[in-house]
Amino acid sequence: MAYYILTQKDAVEYARGIKDIFPDGAQLIVREIGDGNLNHVFHISDSESGRSLIVKQALPYAKMIGESVPLSLDRVRIEKEALSVQRELCPDLTPKLYGYEPDLALMAMEDLSDHTLVRLGLMERGRFPLFAGQIGAYLAQMSFFTSDLFMEQQEKKRLMKAFMNPELCNITEDIIFYAPYTKSRMNRFEPRIRDAVESIWADAELHLEAMLLREKFLTNAQALLHGDLHTDNIFIKPDSAKVIDPEFAYYGPIGFDIGTLIANLLLNYSGQEGWSKDETERIVYRRYLLDTVRDLWTQFELRFRELWNGHIADRMAKTKGYQNLYVSRLLQDTVGFAGVLTVCRVYGFIHVADIDHIDDATARERAQRIALEIGVSLIKRNRYARSIEEVLDIALEAVNER
Amino acid sequence: MAYYILTQKDAVEYARGIKDIFPDGAQLIVREIGDGNLNHVFHISDSESGRSLIVKQALPYAKMIGESVPLSLDRVRIEKEALSVQRELCPDLTPKLYGYEPDLALMAMEDLSDHTLVRLGLMERGRFPLFAGQIGAYLAQMSFFTSDLFMEQQEKKRLMKAFMNPELCNITEDIIFYAPYTKSRMNRFEPRIRDAVESIWADAELHLEAMLLREKFLTNAQALLHGDLHTDNIFIKPDSAKVIDPEFAYYGPIGFDIGTLIANLLLNYSGQEGWSKDETERIVYRRYLLDTVRDLWTQFELRFRELWNGHIADRMAKTKGYQNLYVSRLLQDTVGFAGVLTVCRVYGFIHVADIDHIDDATARERAQRIALEIGVSLIKRNRYARSIEEVLDIALEAVNER
Repeated sequence: MAYYILTQKDAVEYARGIKDIFPDGAQLIVREIGDGNLNHVFHISDSESGRSLIVKQALPYAKMIGESVPLSLDRVRIEKEALSVQRELCPDLTPKLYGYEPDLALMAMEDLSDHTLVRLGLMERGRFPLFAGQIGAYLAQMSFFTSDLFMEQQEKKRLMKAFMNPELCNITEDIIFYAPYTKSRMNRFEPRIRDAVESIWADAELHLEAMLLREKFLTNAQALLHGDLHTDNIFIKPDSAKVIDPEFAYYGPIGFDIGTLIANLLLNYSGQEGWSKDETERIVYRRYLLDTVRDLWTQFELRFRELWNGHIADRMAKTKGYQNLYVSRLLQDTVGFAGVLTVCRVYGFIHVADIDHIDDATARERAQRIALEIGVSLIKRNRYARSIEEVLDIALEAVNER
Repeated sequence: MAYYILTQKDAVEYARGIKDIFPDGAQLIVREIGDGNLNHVFHISDSESGRSLIVKQALPYAKMIGESVPLSLDRVRIEKEALSVQRELCPDLTPKLYGYEPDLALMAMEDLSDHTLVRLGLMERGRFPLFAGQIGAYLAQMSFFTSDLFMEQQEKKRLMKAFMNPELCNITEDIIFYAPYTKSRMNRFEPRIRDAVESIWADAELHLEAMLLREKFLTNAQALLHGDLHTDNIFIKPDSAKVIDPEFAYYGPIGFDIGTLIANLLLNYSGQEGWSKDETERIVYRRYLLDTVRDLWTQFELRFRELWNGHIADRMAKTKGYQNLYVSRLLQDTVGFAGVLTVCRVYGFIHVADIDHIDDATARERAQRIALEIGVSLIKRNRYARSIEEVLDIALEAVNER
């Protein structure tokens, strides 16, 4: 079957052909819910039976700055295979797969409309008591079991090869690790914060640290990463969390995923300038966000060490002191990547709603400046960080001095 | 064409079929010159025309500890492609390729019998004034141009994928980084040095450093390595050097190749207990060997920095301080890998003639102890090393205190 771009009608027909989802003759309703930049995403439902699913088709291009650049459809294979690994290691956190058509670069998946996107939940000052434990465990499971600490080393290299993902890594390398440190047209910012952006462009000490983190992203094949673990890629409801969209998956430094998620929590923390109704509410909710950052790391570390102690496959890795050194380096990487991801989402090519959707221009500017200050401090601290508390201190300081 | 193992007659026939090498009707003489553990190597010559070549065929197994374990023939593709990269970057140091038959896992190559193997040359106390400059430049060219510092990052990932080499990496991981630190049947040593070996098995500080170096070997995809750059894989004569046999090629830490070569110089340095005729000669030749270690690093560093200053493709890499930090880390890796490679060749699965071929048992034992002391000190020093002079000091100390 040759690739073609599905119409809504095609998507419905495809959905109807999947076994055991919709009753025969159901009146299916289709809505396009993707942003259409990289993929078409169709929500297909039958109101009578209450059943629904998602059909997601990759487009052979990415819409970037007004132009379309070609983008390999192989990313659907990568997403599908990454979801298979995830399903094996974290079944509860993985959406069900109903269908996969490699030639059409298409997957049919569980509809998660009964969940909320974490980003939206945080913008509404929601609390998710299970989140840190669930995602901390996800991060530990995924990274430990796909690393050389556990996985047979030949098998790890087979996976590494299957997950070579140059095109999508390249997007990250450019947008996240490069453009923000240079006067690039990939950056988009409001004139009000030009001074802050220019001071980043001029900060050689910062550039060195960003460069070292970029080098890690390019060369350090520690474990299979999600590669894009921001708060729009996690669905949540009180008793459940689901991690979606691992199309950026590749073998990279473990701290990148944890750092990405922490950055997104800190971007929301900064954005509370615009979302909290008053100062008390702001202080209380920010405290909750920082507790979540701490819990996320703590739960990750706890679970990672448990896995290490219980399942380490590698006698050499039992060497005294190695686990502590390994974990302390993960923390340093996490702090650094959290900083880089915070900075890039303020004025890089892709922003976050937590800040951009603040209507009040003054509050939005304050949020941007807070986020940049946090990001820069985290990047500069990374190689010297000893404890997750330092991240919290940096975040507190950025709002207290204002 | 299906794979089969060539007889001497087959090899001659194949050689005869290669264009423009032998005159029609030449009386070809064939000799098998390989050790037959991984490959058959045939030397085929015509005394009348004086022409000759090498036919090398990979065997589908490796002979290990009396048993044969299957081994992928894909390594010939890897060797051939690595030689292509090498030919492009270092044409003068690369043997000519006359033929390649992927189905037969076979290559026909330039005969280098007019050169000497560096190991043999050193055992005869030869001097090779161009060696450090030639090989230092080789190391700089190969590592700089295949790393993210120069190579377009998509292209680097394409190469990385082509050079995934799990089976041969696994041999290194086991024999070099694992077995020597554990009571493994992969180790082979004389009872006389059991105390020294056991003290390595009990040294947790040492194991931690070895583990960190092994982690680098497993995860740090800096540049395309030769992967097995010992002194039997370099041919030399006064005006020429050739690097052969990159079947272990893969993307790994740059310091591994430099460290392997320095280790082999230090193994010969240790072996001079048995090769030098008297103490004066020994002192003088060891001085030459240490000068070569220093020159090799210095020439590498000089050339690597020149390439960086002249050809850096990556604006971010121009960040102040990055080059110095990068090079100082390369030195540390080099020191560590040199230590690991020195230790493993004394009592691991594969030894070196520089020590094993010493007839006098007492001299041989002294050589083994000197090498182990050097290796252990280098491994323990690696993360703190600041200058190549420290390697020289460690080597001098190991012989002076005796």
